[in-house]
Parts: sequence; C-alpha cells; structure tokens
Amino acid sequence: MEMPTSQKAKLQIRGTPASRGIAFGRISFLKRHALPSERHEVSDMKAELERFEKARTDAIAQLGNLYEASLEKVGEQNAVVFQIHQMMLDDPDYVSQINELIENEHVNAEYAVDFVSKKFADMFKSMDNDYMQGRAADVIDISRRVTELLLLNSGQLIPQKISPSQGQPVILATDDLSPSETVQLDKDSVSGIITSDGSSRSHTVIFARTMGIASVICIGPSLNPSLEGKFAIVDGGSGIVYIEPDEATIAEFTERKRTEDALRARLEQFRGKETLTLSGRKIHLYANIGSADDIELAKASDAEGIGLFRSEYIYLSSPDFPSEETQFNIYKQVLEGMSGKQVIIRTLDIGADKTADYFMLKPEDNPAMGMRAVRICLTRPEIFKTQLKALYRASIYGNLAIMFPMITTVEEVKQCIALCDEVKKDLSKNSIPYSHNVSLGIMIETPASAIISDELAQYVDFFSIGTNDLTQFTLAVDRQNAEISKFLNPYHHAVIRLIEYTVKNAHDAGIWVGVCGELAADEGFTHELVRIGVDEISVAPSSVLMLRARISTLG
Amino acid sequence: MEMPTSQKAKLQIRGTPASRGIAFGRISFLKRHALPSERHEVSDMKAELERFEKARTDAIAQLGNLYEASLEKVGEQNAVVFQIHQMMLDDPDYVSQINELIENEHVNAEYAVDFVSKKFADMFKSMDNDYMQGRAADVIDISRRVTELLLLNSGQLIPQKISPSQGQPVILATDDLSPSETVQLDKDSVSGIITSDGSSRSHTVIFARTMGIASVICIGPSLNPSLEGKFAIVDGGSGIVYIEPDEATIAEFTERKRTEDALRARLEQFRGKETLTLSGRKIHLYANIGSADDIELAKASDAEGIGLFRSEYIYLSSPDFPSEETQFNIYKQVLEGMSGKQVIIRTLDIGADKTADYFMLKPEDNPAMGMRAVRICLTRPEIFKTQLKALYRASIYGNLAIMFPMITTVEEVKQCIALCDEVKKDLSKNSIPYSHNVSLGIMIETPASAIISDELAQYVDFFSIGTNDLTQFTLAVDRQNAEISKFLNPYHHAVIRLIEYTVKNAHDAGIWVGVCGELAADEGFTHELVRIGVDEISVAPSSVLMLRARISTLG
Repeated sequence: MEMPTSQKAKLQIRGTPASRGIAFGRISFLKRHALPSERHEVSDMKAELERFEKARTDAIAQLGNLYEASLEKVGEQNAVVFQIHQMMLDDPDYVSQINELIENEHVNAEYAVDFVSKKFADMFKSMDNDYMQGRAADVIDISRRVTELLLLNSGQLIPQKISPSQGQPVILATDDLSPSETVQLDKDSVSGIITSDGSSRSHTVIFARTMGIASVICIGPSLNPSLEGKFAIVDGGSGIVYIEPDEATIAEFTERKRTEDALRARLEQFRGKETLTLSGRKIHLYANIGSADDIELAKASDAEGIGLFRSEYIYLSSPDFPSEETQFNIYKQVLEGMSGKQVIIRTLDIGADKTADYFMLKPEDNPAMGMRAVRICLTRPEIFKTQLKALYRASIYGNLAIMFPMITTVEEVKQCIALCDEVKKDLSKNSIPYSHNVSLGIMIETPASAIISDELAQYVDFFSIGTNDLTQFTLAVDRQNAEISKFLNPYHHAVIRLIEYTVKNAHDAGIWVGVCGELAADEGFTHELVRIGVDEISVAPSSVLMLRARISTLG
Repeated sequence: MEMPTSQKAKLQIRGTPASRGIAFGRISFLKRHALPSERHEVSDMKAELERFEKARTDAIAQLGNLYEASLEKVGEQNAVVFQIHQMMLDDPDYVSQINELIENEHVNAEYAVDFVSKKFADMFKSMDNDYMQGRAADVIDISRRVTELLLLNSGQLIPQKISPSQGQPVILATDDLSPSETVQLDKDSVSGIITSDGSSRSHTVIFARTMGIASVICIGPSLNPSLEGKFAIVDGGSGIVYIEPDEATIAEFTERKRTEDALRARLEQFRGKETLTLSGRKIHLYANIGSADDIELAKASDAEGIGLFRSEYIYLSSPDFPSEETQFNIYKQVLEGMSGKQVIIRTLDIGADKTADYFMLKPEDNPAMGMRAVRICLTRPEIFKTQLKALYRASIYGNLAIMFPMITTVEEVKQCIALCDEVKKDLSKNSIPYSHNVSLGIMIETPASAIISDELAQYVDFFSIGTNDLTQFTLAVDRQNAEISKFLNPYHHAVIRLIEYTVKNAHDAGIWVGVCGELAADEGFTHELVRIGVDEISVAPSSVLMLRARISTLG
C-alpha cells in the first residue's frame, strides 16, 4: 500500500539546531575520496617511513595555504584551526606512535595513520566534555589529509575538488564536516549543512554560524544516502529538515525566510551603532563566549565587548592544569582580538557540573552548592595565582576586567583582591609589565551576594548578575533537573527583587552593574532590565543585534 | 617500661554524646543470662512448636506487666514500646518463619528464634535511616525475652534480677540496652550508661534523656570487660568517659557537676513559667520532635507546645506508604499527649537526604534542590491528601497547626490550601468530625519565600523560619558537606536580613512568626531573635529551659 501523497510530503528528520536560518535546496552528499587504509605487510620499512614523512610535511604545507586562504573568509580566530592542525602533525607523541607501528609491525603507512588517529580520536571522544569531544574531528581531519596525500603521492588517487556545487546552491549532507572541508565551502554553492554526527562545539558549527549558513547537526541514521538529490528545507532554528515538502510547507517557509531576511536586514541597520534606549540611555551590549575561537563570532555579532569569557573551558579542554604560558596566550589572543574593547574574564568557575579529573574534586551530594569556583580558588591559591598572573600579564594587550564567581561574603572579595595585589607585586619585582587599569568585579549569583550587595559594592568596580544560578539558589530548584522544571520560574518576583536591589546598591555606591545569565537574552524580559536600570547586558553573540533593536524601542 | 601515673590517669574513651550530664561511679557491666541457642536436632517437632508457643505467649504477658510498670516511670509515650513488642511477637511473618524453621529443619526453638530474629535485625540495620536501625534493637530484645523464657520454662535457667546496683550507683556498661532492660533501671542504682553500640534514635537514648541519666553510646571496642569495676567519669555532653581519672580531673568534674547541678536548679525555677523578655514581651517557646515517642521528652522539658513535628519520620520508618489510619493514630497520640497545647505538624518533608525506597524517587544531581517536600506532595496529591485527611481527622484531639515545607511561590500555598479544603469537604460529606480552628502556616526556608514573604503572608496564619535550609540556599553552601563548612556562616548578614525582612512582613500582615532551625537553639544568637521580634522559638527539648532563662535576661 502506498502512502497518500500528503503523508509522504510530510517527512521530516530532526537534529540539533546548530546555525539559525532557513535554507532551500537539493540534498547533496559530500563526495569524499575513498581512502583505503587496509592493513598490509610492507617489506621496505625505510621507504614506508619516508612515504609517511613526505605526506606529513606536504600536509603541513597544505595547511599553511589553507590558513592563508581562510583568514579573510572566517577570520583569524577560526583560521587558526589550521595552525593547530599543523601543530598536531608535529606532535611527537602522534608522529612517533605512527612511526613505531610501521617499524614494529611492518605495516603500510595508511594503516598506521588510520589506526593511531582513531586511537587519539577515541581518547578525545571519551572525555566528558563537549570541547574535547569536538577535537576528535580534528584528529580525523588530519588523518584524512595525510592518507589522501599518501595515496595521491603514490598515484593511487586522482586529485578531485571537494566543492559540491551543482549550479543551484545545495544542502550539503555528510556525517561530520572537517574544518578544512567547511572552509572550502562558499555560500553560493551551499545554502545549508546537515550532518548525522557532530558536536555543538565543533568548528563546523562555528564556521556555519560565522558564515550564516543554516545548519542542523546530530540527525543520526535518518540522514542516509536515500535522500540524495531530494529537495529539502533546513530550519536551522528548530533543527527540523523537511524532505520533499508539500507546497503549503514551501510557501510557509518561503514566507518565513522572507520575514527572517527582512528582520535580518532590519537588524543590520543596528550594526555599528550604540545601544540606546528610547530616552537615549546607553546600555553596553556585550557577548558571552566560551573560548578564544568564539571571538570571531562575537565580533561578527557587533558586540561592544565581552561581558563573560568563561575561562573554565581552558581547564576543561586540558589534560592537566593549563600552564601560565598557555593561559597567557589565550587571554592575550582574546584581548587583542577585541581590539581595545572591554573583555571581562571570569576566573575559574569549575566544580558543580563542570569538572576535570586532574582537579581531584571529591564527589559531592549537592555539587551545585559544593566546592566550586572561588571556593576552590581560595582553598588552593596556587591554582588561582597561576591564572591571575596569566591575566595580569595579558592585561597590556587590551582592556581587561577580571570577575570572580560564586561570591557570598566580603571576606572572599578581600581575599581575591589580596591575591591580585600579591600577583601584581610579583610581576613588578620581576619587571614584567601589566596594566594598572584592570577593573575587578564579582558575579552576583548567590542570594547572599545580592542581599549584601551594598556591602560588596564598596570593594569592587562592577557587578555582573548571573541570573541562572541566582534563580536556582533563590528558588532552591536545580536548574538542570528536568523533573522539577515546572518549579523553576525565572520571572519569579523574588529574583526580580534581588536584581532591583543589587542595581540600586551598585548605583548608590557609584559602580556599574550588568546581567549575564539567560534572562539577559530573553526579549520578553528586556523591558524589566531596562526599567531596573542595568548598565550592561551580555548575551550569546547571536542575540546581540536583536537585543540592540529591542532596547531601542524601550524606556 | 611502665607509663608514668599522670599518663595512665588520662585514659579516656570516646563515644557519641547521647544524654547530657556528668556521672561518677564504678563501671559495672550488665550481667545477662548466658542464653545458649546452639543448633541441635529435635525429634518431637510438635512438642518443640508448643515450647515456642508457650514462651511466646508468656513473653506477651510479661510485656503487658512491663507496660503497666513503666507507665509512671517514663510515661505512656515511652512505655508504648512494650506494646509494640507485643505486636512484634504477634507478627505473622516473624512467627511463621520461626515455626517453619523448626518444622522444616527439625531444630530447637532457641536456635530458630535466634536465627530468625538476627535475620530481621540485620534487615533493619541495613536500612539507610537511623530510626529503622534503632528498631533492630527491639527485635533482639524480644528474641532474648523469648529465649530466656524457653530456657526458664525448661528449667535450664534460674531467674535473676538484671539491676546492677551495688550500694553506690554505678556506671552501667554494655553493648546496647534493650528497652526492657532500660526501664528496669533506676537513678539510685545507675548514675550513667555507656554502650559500645547503639543508635542515637534508640529507646535507650530516649529513656536515658527522659530520666536524666548521663549517657555515652557507640564507644566501640574500647569499652571492654577489662574496665569492669574501674572508677570513671561520664561526660554525656562531650561523649568522653574518663577511666580512673586523676585527682585534678575528679576535682574539675566535681566542680563542673556542681555548676551544672546549680544551673539545672536555676533552670528548674523557670519550669512552669511563661517565657518573657526583660521588657515583658511573651515568646512562645516550643519543642522540635521527630516522633510520637519524643512527646514525653517535650513535656519533661516544659515546652509550651510543639513547634515542629517532623512527620517524615512516620514515612521513613515505614516499609510502604503509611495508611491514613496509621497516621491518624500517631497525630492523635501527639495531640492528646500535648493536652491542648499547640502542636505544629510539618507535612511530609521527604527527598534531599531523607528518602524511602517505596517513594521511587529518581536519583538527582543536587537532591537538596530537587524533587522534595511540598514539590512531591503537589506532584503526587494522592500521597498528600492521605496525610491531610489523617491530620484533619486527628485535629479534634488537640490544638493542631499544619505547616507546609519548601514553599517558594504564592501559587504553591494556594494549591496546599485548596487540597486542605478538598479534604475538609470530603470529611464533612462523610460526617467525619474535624476542628475548624486548624491554623495553616508555611516554612520560610528558601530565599524566595523570605523575599516574597509580604505576598505569602496574605494567605497563611503563621510563618516558621527554617534557618538551616535558609542559610544553605542563601549562601549556596550544602550544609552537610564538611569540605566547605568554612563557607557556611549561619550568622551571615544576608541570612539575618532575610529573617528581619520576614518578621517585618509577617507583623505588617498581622500574623505571627517563629524560628525552628539550629539558630533558634543558639544562645549566642538569641539576642538577635529577640531584637528582631520573633514570636515563637522552637528548639530541641533539652534546650527549652536554658533558652527560657536566656530570654528572661534579654530585651
């Protein structure tokens, strides 16, 4: 029995929304070279080692070219991935394991590269954080590149262009895109990207967002080759892909796309402008970011600064405590990337749901109210001082503000400031320069800090209200527990009163106050924030222009 | 090499403080009948079953006499344990397992009783709550009683009096006291009790406190027969037992006992009085209790009412949801026990660290901020309505107030009240009487409820501030996590401000407000509570007179 057409027409596949926008086009699966890497025995090991070495150095050269080519397209912050790939190909551990496999087991280079790369990728995938899981794709990407070069160099492969263009822009389908595949795409040939795998922190997603290509990832096995050539609509906002949509659906999404394009065009008018309320009051509209990679997104969004750089991701993506030098380089990159605009870096907010093994944190019954953030930093000041030193050293490269999370007492603030002073004294003694204009602020994210914000305001330059944690503790409702989400009301009058009280106390003390939790990006709440009089609002890059437009209609 | 005398003299053994006070005396181990229960084969099973049946019925008769004898000594609430033992001896499961063991394995009754009782005791011990663990002692107690009777009836044992008196009062030492052993003691022959095992919720402890006998439990293997006859000092407040103390220690504790006795005598002057501040303002001084057993303690302490009856212990000590009838009987017992004084019963506060398997609660990352208390009751109203029905049915037997825990919104309060109305309507329809004067109140133990206490006060008759949870959520510090206890400051200015704000809002709305957390019993904080103007303070029974004395010197 055949399904009626109207049923057939309603086939939808669903995935994770990765990059907003609506795209129309035929589905085209990415054609990759088949890259045989079957194991076979090799007699001339010396020659095999040389084959690998040549492919490796060729790959490094190719990556250099890709870096140059992508600089303009996606900006330095994203192009840097190719430099990271170059470094990976120089990683002694990776290279020596491949060489040893060839030597010890007398195998071909393709097999050795494939085997060792999968091992590294599995290791990354098994790590309990999105960022490191995203890195698995990088290893697979460099493995493909080297294998391709091994086969091209030995004439087993004919060079082929990856671009999937076919006259009309297509919806590119694949398991997961490598960074180098993504950067070779252009908007004229690709209108949307849909993948069966992927991770929300992968370069694919960052690229797609920066380039404004609608994208849905993690679709799973529903995305299969039977869809090749079929017309589809990708809704990057909802994560739904409509396969062979009926005319009503096409009409609906054509209208929606027109509206979205019009909205985008309207929002574009706010680009490069100040964020002003109707009455002309200026609000600083900043972006929240999780890594240096996100800087390009923040800049593309026209954010006026970084309101929250979550420094814990540096720790979460590291197998051991990141060195002062590693941190310094990242902070420097972010500060330079923002070219003198204010960058508020929140010190290590690890613990609760974000942990890294090497911290050796004890299991806790209620980790959200446990040993976390500044509590760890003040209990283990050696960790904290490394971060503060890296921050102050980087401070000369831009406009830095340092923000301490999970504060509940004046005493904690005094201790944080004392450690900053100690670090600055050390730097001075060693003639290492640092800025004397670093602002110090605190997160207001515990009820206690809001309730004694009058006392705390005497010691810092600014407050940033973290509405997520503030709401969770005020209502005693774990915000990550879906079972009780009906008890979590972010508009609860108690939370609003705490925000009002904090803003009043900040202004009475002559300091500024921002908001950086989820409420900040909630358009339905913006009028409250404007009414209450917050000075700064920090949101995801994708919300910046929208919020600037919204604020222009308020107060 | 012999230790110098001064060292030797300083031998101390430590346990859990169980009942305050200082006792002097020689250590005397409780002499129990040796009760052989070795397994041996029995040919005449019918006779053996009859032996067991006779011993069982004799034991039930004995327990009836004990109940009568102990009524006066420790009050009905505590004497009732002997009725519970009678019921245990009638438990079909217990009796049939013993009978089956005798029948199926052809064993002697002593062995069968011992085997089955240990099995039941182990089951209770393995339960994850103090109350049920305390019940293990009850099973061992009835097992001893039956075995003793088996042996006495067959002439294998000569009757013997348990009392350890030897002219001077002794310090009674043993592994753990059974309720029937405890009730046969008297203050003239026993000055203190020290046990190697035990649990803080055992009848032993309740008896010891009610009778004012200094007691230290859970001492472990340090309490061994080598100490028999040695002079010792028991400090029930610190949990330390001084063995053969030197003269300085004896002098010190003689002085301390004199001071404590004087203090007790001074406190006794406050018995039967109202609790008044210097300026004559009346404060209602109530007691917190966990079970109906504690009523006797509360009355002995001269509490003016029950400020917090933790009804969850009824659920925690039950293998399945306690029936309406079971609950009704307990609430009735408490209300009658308090003879018309106010009894505030807090509805089910289960979840967080207090769970019972049959609730089938899901594991949570942060249970303290999870599905608990009123959130369970409003999500599963059938459980809640059973409790409310039992409460309203019991309301005619005294002066009942019902209090709802973990409130964060006005909506929750309205839902609780609506369910009460529904229950009352049901009762009316079935012509079941209930009091029309039941007060309804809420716990103020989340920051949200304190911050919107002006709104909440419009719907209830009273507030009770739970300072433990309020402090934990306000500071976002898990109060049961020892690792971060240094961040848990109960005197935090934010907590005091929330208490002040709540009291002001209550009084503005014309309702009364109490405090029932740990701060309530903290003498160093009483002056703040009096200054802030709370109307009621509810503390552990042992703190009542002390606090009445303290309040008489304030404000």
